[in-house]
Amino acid sequence: MARRRLVTLTTDIGSVYAAQMKAVLYRFLGPGEVVDLAHDLPRHAIREAAFLLRQIASGFPAGTVHVAVIDPGVGGRRAPIAIRCADGSTLVGPDNGVLAPLAERLGGPKAYRLDPERVATSSVPPSATFEGRDLFAPAAALLARGKDPRDLGTPLAFQRLDLPVPTRTGSMARGEVLHVDRFGNLITNLPAGWLPPRPGRVRTRVGRSQWRPLARARTYEEIPTRREPAVLGSSFGTVEVSVREGSAAEWYGVTSGAPVELAWTPRRSRPRSKERK
Amino acid sequence: MARRRLVTLTTDIGSVYAAQMKAVLYRFLGPGEVVDLAHDLPRHAIREAAFLLRQIASGFPAGTVHVAVIDPGVGGRRAPIAIRCADGSTLVGPDNGVLAPLAERLGGPKAYRLDPERVATSSVPPSATFEGRDLFAPAAALLARGKDPRDLGTPLAFQRLDLPVPTRTGSMARGEVLHVDRFGNLITNLPAGWLPPRPGRVRTRVGRSQWRPLARARTYEEIPTRREPAVLGSSFGTVEVSVREGSAAEWYGVTSGAPVELAWTPRRSRPRSKERK
Amino acid sequence: MARRRLVTLTTDIGSVYAAQMKAVLYRFLGPGEVVDLAHDLPRHAIREAAFLLRQIASGFPAGTVHVAVIDPGVGGRRAPIAIRCADGSTLVGPDNGVLAPLAERLGGPKAYRLDPERVATSSVPPSATFEGRDLFAPAAALLARGKDPRDLGTPLAFQRLDLPVPTRTGSMARGEVLHVDRFGNLITNLPAGWLPPRPGRVRTRVGRSQWRPLARARTYEEIPTRREPAVLGSSFGTVEVSVREGSAAEWYGVTSGAPVELAWTPRRSRPRSKERK
Repeated sequence: MARRRLVTLTTDIGSVYAAQMKAVLYRFLGPGEVVDLAHDLPRHAIREAAFLLRQIASGFPAGTVHVAVIDPGVGGRRAPIAIRCADGSTLVGPDNGVLAPLAERLGGPKAYRLDPERVATSSVPPSATFEGRDLFAPAAALLARGKDPRDLGTPLAFQRLDLPVPTRTGSMARGEVLHVDRFGNLITNLPAGWLPPRPGRVRTRVGRSQWRPLARARTYEEIPTRREPAVLGSSFGTVEVSVREGSAAEWYGVTSGAPVELAWTPRRSRPRSKERK
Repeated sequence: MARRRLVTLTTDIGSVYAAQMKAVLYRFLGPGEVVDLAHDLPRHAIREAAFLLRQIASGFPAGTVHVAVIDPGVGGRRAPIAIRCADGSTLVGPDNGVLAPLAERLGGPKAYRLDPERVATSSVPPSATFEGRDLFAPAAALLARGKDPRDLGTPLAFQRLDLPVPTRTGSMARGEVLHVDRFGNLITNLPAGWLPPRPGRVRTRVGRSQWRPLARARTYEEIPTRREPAVLGSSFGTVEVSVREGSAAEWYGVTSGAPVELAWTPRRSRPRSKERK
Repeated sequence: MARRRLVTLTTDIGSVYAAQMKAVLYRFLGPGEVVDLAHDLPRHAIREAAFLLRQIASGFPAGTVHVAVIDPGVGGRRAPIAIRCADGSTLVGPDNGVLAPLAERLGGPKAYRLDPERVATSSVPPSATFEGRDLFAPAAALLARGKDPRDLGTPLAFQRLDLPVPTRTGSMARGEVLHVDRFGNLITNLPAGWLPPRPGRVRTRVGRSQWRPLARARTYEEIPTRREPAVLGSSFGTVEVSVREGSAAEWYGVTSGAPVELAWTPRRSRPRSKERK
């Protein structure tokens, strides 16, 4: 007998709509088998959600069913899908790319277009504006109870979503903000390994700001000046721009998608005093 | 032996107070037997909460215990109650109408005024300002463990709450906004079935706005113009006014309770061009 | 065999980071064994969080594992700790005082500095900016599964945090706001027992406001005037300043830490009319 799996929910739809998904799930599942991850993601921000879902969900045990509802095209042309990955995890949501980076990370993805008639857990047809409740939730419940995704739909090539790749040329690097966290920290796609060994300063440009030498800190506490931005390695493994006791997003007036550039002084080529001016 | 039931929580009290209710519940219940539905409902908005609770909770399995804490009159004259419904579900909360539409939907409601002494799970008397923690939570725990509501109180006729009924006369319909969702969509009480078959336009008035022909869409993606309102059928089964990539609530400057009117052109009575101007 | 224990999470880090902690916890724990208490506490407000954590967590069953992540000094000098209390509950978090009032309340606290190598649940070293995920979560999971905190670290004297003590001299009392709740109510540290028996008025000063005779109410409903502040006994057992259908925090323009003073008219010494003017 198939062991039951956890179902996680990651959405931008808020508590009230998410609660309706939980109602459906608990018609099939036992106590505690549904885990809320986030329901307050930025509205319709598919790329940011794809990045966060990969980060969060890849930490769950193999075999978990992850449902993502960031779905501006609900009821339209994008397909409702389920993706089975190599580790037995299953991803459920719209085929708009939000599941793609997680599917790649987990590996071996096989995707299926969900067929409402095969999911059919009730006589009510799915609404055109809330497939999260009417199709994804019952499909996730069936998958958590051991149903094979092949039995709920037909194979399809799912839509890829390539998160932006940072570039590095000589003493310059260019990436962008992928997520603004609750503290206003800017989480970028630049690998933390590109930062110089501490301590020191890194000339940095965020959005359309001036170039500015920022302190490179290892922890928030190490940031030397309050209410000034600094760079450090984020818990995502990437470069983070942070303002101690403040918000880097407000400091720079930027949000997800803003470019972030780093420049290193070629060592020994110039006197330090000038470069750091 | 009675099977344990899930306890759901729907409140406007925020995470900190809700956490105190969970502390009490978990003194009696097992892992995962408490399900958070929402703790961020609009403050003291009894009617909106009643509408949402009916929508959310009626989807849960029969036998669930639903606790609602939207309770501006806490500790005052309104009674603390439990309502047992025909399907075995039990509703717990203040007798201010918030439970009534759900009770009617589930059918066969029998209500009891909760007696603090009979609930009495501790030597501490209930506080005058937080019966959610001190009376509803322990009562819900006992009910979830199989206690009969008759043993926790005395019968009473619970307060009804009639959600506003939309009216339709000839080519005009009048309803109102019952809920503003996280996206600023206006969820009305007008049946979606009153909308004309798509496509086309429906003359619409929201709050004190001008009459305006709005596109009738089936999905958000079908809304032809960005940042302009349109009408569609909501996942509540009613008419929804939505602004693509924007907030209809902000567009119109309205909130729950605002009137929403629809007018249809009598077919063939006038040339279209004029009517749609 | 040790019975598994619930793990509760109280943080200021928001849903996305909390979800990453849940991913780690569910690699070790069963369905429903993780309980979200709050992830939206005020940023880096250690004292307020310490007060709330004591209030919330002391209501949970003995043996629960409580994790708190309000951690501005993450990765820095403050130690990561676990505290075992007399009732078998275990507290996990940073040694910045946030756990101290709860530890005192539960009694018999024995603290240990967590050793990352002994927690070591993976080959990945803890990040410098998110020990909640990389150290506290795996430690909490091990503790919930019966591990003794002595096996995860070395004894240490944990940092105390003394919540401010209210003072009373003759007909005056002085305390402060410890928490602003979702409704803008000001929860103080003044014992509710210091309020006069109702009804009547209490001269009150909040922040730098004028002295003002406030109605003393037992419930919100009893507050005689809308949009005017009144005092009542909070569900924390302390004095609360509340504005009916409004926010006391906005009314006074204050937040946590603001002083709150009460003054009682010496009985019979002066005519009432003058005093209350």
